[in-house]
Amino acid sequence: MYKDRIRCNVLLDRIVSADEAALLIKNGMRVGTSGFTPSGYPKAVPMALAKQARAGRKVQIDLLTGASVGDELDGELSEAGVIVRRVPYQTNKAMRRAINEGRVQYLDQHLSHSSQQVRYGFHGNLDVAIIEACAITENGHIVPTTSIGNSPTFVQEADIVIVELNTSQPPEMEGMHDIYIPQDPPSRQPIPIINPGDRIGSPYISCGPDKIKAIVITDIIDKVRPLAPIDDLSKAMAANLIDFLQQEVKLGRLPQKMLPLQSGVGSVANAVLAGLLDSGFEDLVFYSEVIQDSALDMIDADKFAVCSGTSITPSAAGLVRFKDKIDFYSKKIILRPQEISNNPEVARRIGVISINTAIEIDIYGNVNSTHIMGTKMMNGIGGSGDFTRNAYLSIFITASTAKNGAISCIVPMVSHVDHTEHDVSIIVTEQGVADLRNKSPKERAVEIISNCAHPDYRAMLNDYFERAVKATNNAHTPHLMGYSHEFHKRFIETGTMKCPRA
Amino acid sequence: MYKDRIRCNVLLDRIVSADEAALLIKNGMRVGTSGFTPSGYPKAVPMALAKQARAGRKVQIDLLTGASVGDELDGELSEAGVIVRRVPYQTNKAMRRAINEGRVQYLDQHLSHSSQQVRYGFHGNLDVAIIEACAITENGHIVPTTSIGNSPTFVQEADIVIVELNTSQPPEMEGMHDIYIPQDPPSRQPIPIINPGDRIGSPYISCGPDKIKAIVITDIIDKVRPLAPIDDLSKAMAANLIDFLQQEVKLGRLPQKMLPLQSGVGSVANAVLAGLLDSGFEDLVFYSEVIQDSALDMIDADKFAVCSGTSITPSAAGLVRFKDKIDFYSKKIILRPQEISNNPEVARRIGVISINTAIEIDIYGNVNSTHIMGTKMMNGIGGSGDFTRNAYLSIFITASTAKNGAISCIVPMVSHVDHTEHDVSIIVTEQGVADLRNKSPKERAVEIISNCAHPDYRAMLNDYFERAVKATNNAHTPHLMGYSHEFHKRFIETGTMKCPRA
Repeated sequence: MYKDRIRCNVLLDRIVSADEAALLIKNGMRVGTSGFTPSGYPKAVPMALAKQARAGRKVQIDLLTGASVGDELDGELSEAGVIVRRVPYQTNKAMRRAINEGRVQYLDQHLSHSSQQVRYGFHGNLDVAIIEACAITENGHIVPTTSIGNSPTFVQEADIVIVELNTSQPPEMEGMHDIYIPQDPPSRQPIPIINPGDRIGSPYISCGPDKIKAIVITDIIDKVRPLAPIDDLSKAMAANLIDFLQQEVKLGRLPQKMLPLQSGVGSVANAVLAGLLDSGFEDLVFYSEVIQDSALDMIDADKFAVCSGTSITPSAAGLVRFKDKIDFYSKKIILRPQEISNNPEVARRIGVISINTAIEIDIYGNVNSTHIMGTKMMNGIGGSGDFTRNAYLSIFITASTAKNGAISCIVPMVSHVDHTEHDVSIIVTEQGVADLRNKSPKERAVEIISNCAHPDYRAMLNDYFERAVKATNNAHTPHLMGYSHEFHKRFIETGTMKCPRA
Repeated sequence: MYKDRIRCNVLLDRIVSADEAALLIKNGMRVGTSGFTPSGYPKAVPMALAKQARAGRKVQIDLLTGASVGDELDGELSEAGVIVRRVPYQTNKAMRRAINEGRVQYLDQHLSHSSQQVRYGFHGNLDVAIIEACAITENGHIVPTTSIGNSPTFVQEADIVIVELNTSQPPEMEGMHDIYIPQDPPSRQPIPIINPGDRIGSPYISCGPDKIKAIVITDIIDKVRPLAPIDDLSKAMAANLIDFLQQEVKLGRLPQKMLPLQSGVGSVANAVLAGLLDSGFEDLVFYSEVIQDSALDMIDADKFAVCSGTSITPSAAGLVRFKDKIDFYSKKIILRPQEISNNPEVARRIGVISINTAIEIDIYGNVNSTHIMGTKMMNGIGGSGDFTRNAYLSIFITASTAKNGAISCIVPMVSHVDHTEHDVSIIVTEQGVADLRNKSPKERAVEIISNCAHPDYRAMLNDYFERAVKATNNAHTPHLMGYSHEFHKRFIETGTMKCPRA
């Protein structure tokens, strides 16, 4: 079953149990793994390591991944107290708790930055790479599975490599990957992607047999996250966004085929693509991070001419569909390292339309993508900064309220800034669209409050804005310093951002 | 005197007075001018326009420039009430006042973004471009003067062009400029700069005689800003920075020749280059925006192998030196459009070491570069975001206090965010250096408070941090929402950030 996947004979001797492989990971090591937005991450070795730790083995590590990984890795290891430092993104419940209780030091990083910062030596020496693979080539190179993430750099930089050969991953994936590692300055060359569908690298991660110290055979399936069905709220946001894009085409500010779309992860992103499926747009291009069910739908409907990302993360049902029609999808899908899928150079050159979700947005257009009430880490900035700053059009979507209306997602001042006023062009809520281009902060405030805020909060927001304008004599960005987080303070103290009288 | 500078004979007939040229600018127009960090901006036509407005002519315009321009343009026109909207950067006292009194709507923009946003149509139609020129070629193309900024795109996009031929600008500048306008998506190609000294374009701005509707002859000298002498505080910051860079070389994280340096504008930036002059570093490369006196010193001392920017802004004395040795300097200096000097693609490829100043920095590493007490615009973000996000090493410098100690430049939470925690690697004050790489927010807080804050404020900062850790049960980014701007509130109310008991 697995022997035809290990085409480098000398490596057949390195097949070991997950327990034996886990023993290669020593206390104090820095470990980089495959995995991006729960897909293509190692599972057997982390679970074995967690078991060893729970049985009393002293082992604490720094964990670097592509992006979020499943419960077998982030969940098990954080609960077993194995991870002390985590880079660059996560979405796991147990890991999030560990981060917000101060048990794990978390570095929330632009996803295009991690690989080069590892190569630059800014994270210290990388001791081990653990990579999930579909196959190993005749020369000992690694064919990854449903995600690439930072794996190529981890393999290049790590002292040793452990491969998890996952027989549940279809071998037909070979050829979908396009692996390219840029040289470091001062020797770096232009990244030669001119068109979003260009292939510029090799179909495998260069490694060679010497570096691979252990191979573990497994068939554990990616623990993909179930997708919420598209609700009316998401549909309303998606409809507003698509109306806006159609308007831009009409005004001649976007070509009829638009420009390459980048879209975040989750049900709102799925709703946007679902909306596009029913729109008049044809021959679209997707240049993004994560390929979800809705992207497969777009391929099925022949709406996507190119579909480029760094990971495929369908639902459980989507995964079955993907495997069933793998020969069809593999012609349309290109998987790249996250350093390339998210590359600012490429994003600006091809002119992506970036569509990302926000936790909260303030009246001047600053966006918080990461922190709940300014303090608790939700997931991380992910690739939103890579795309947003370099986009042709930078769009953020959020519902106008959360927690059944107790939270306004439009606030006087965000409690944490991930995207500054300089980087945000368009805001979309179920209420409408705010176009911030060519507008000063005060003009943006009027636009955002009128078009995007929930009616329940408009008067409160206008009241803050007017008081701030008055107190600062109409300064460039009117704020009441010391009172700019009064919405958040009220929520923390009373459980709602609404005023008692409201 | 000027006739040999207008080499396209048909254009000799278009020479008019500044008053006549100013009449081409109609009420409601959008005007783009040359000029970057008071150099190479038009002077005669704006002054004539201001005079006309003061005499009762109704004329209000949107003004787009490269970056900051002198008093003849921003000062005169804002005081005459001519400017209603201003893009993308300014430093003029009268303009700043107009912005902070709500008389001018100001869009504070990443300087690499302006040209493409004009081409994308996001600012609306550009009616007029006013460009200061050294010469006009045989084919009616424009040789700019001491800055390029956004001029190439303004000339390309404007309906008509007015040239201010400035005979005080040395004709020997011809050949220093390298003009390249990228195609727009989906047709954009890689920007072909591999080495910082590469020339990729033409020595003039493509225009042609038809578009030039008026030429005004002038000899007004750029109103460059006087440079403060390098004081002990700036020297201490520069020394800390250079120690750090030397350490990075020793640790093998930087090559001996370092990587291309980008450095902001002003006396601190001058102090840094002056410090490098006396350091052991040789054969350095400068890939930045503005070339000040200290950069000329580095060229004189043969320390700069390449010196690339978008403007030359020496002091009055430096300007004399520049003109005296123009043949020498013109071999070392390359002037580029700001879209190229500040280009994220190029900055990341060549791996700039970015060195920019901050107004305030918070304990978690967020930087405010633009707003005084969160509300009043100082200058603008300029190119700092273009470089910082894409730098090999992103460094911010500030004195630890301002206003004779009444303001701590290290605060619990900045009052405005221009550079997020994701984009800042190193902080330097006269107190020391904080290295934020590979650190979580709480680890950064300890590093910044201990190494960079002024001793007078350390206890207060630690007190806030400890209270926030306690109140949030050690959350990822501990903050006391509603009290995170207590330093600013106290300053506004009492004139100092210090507690009454301190």
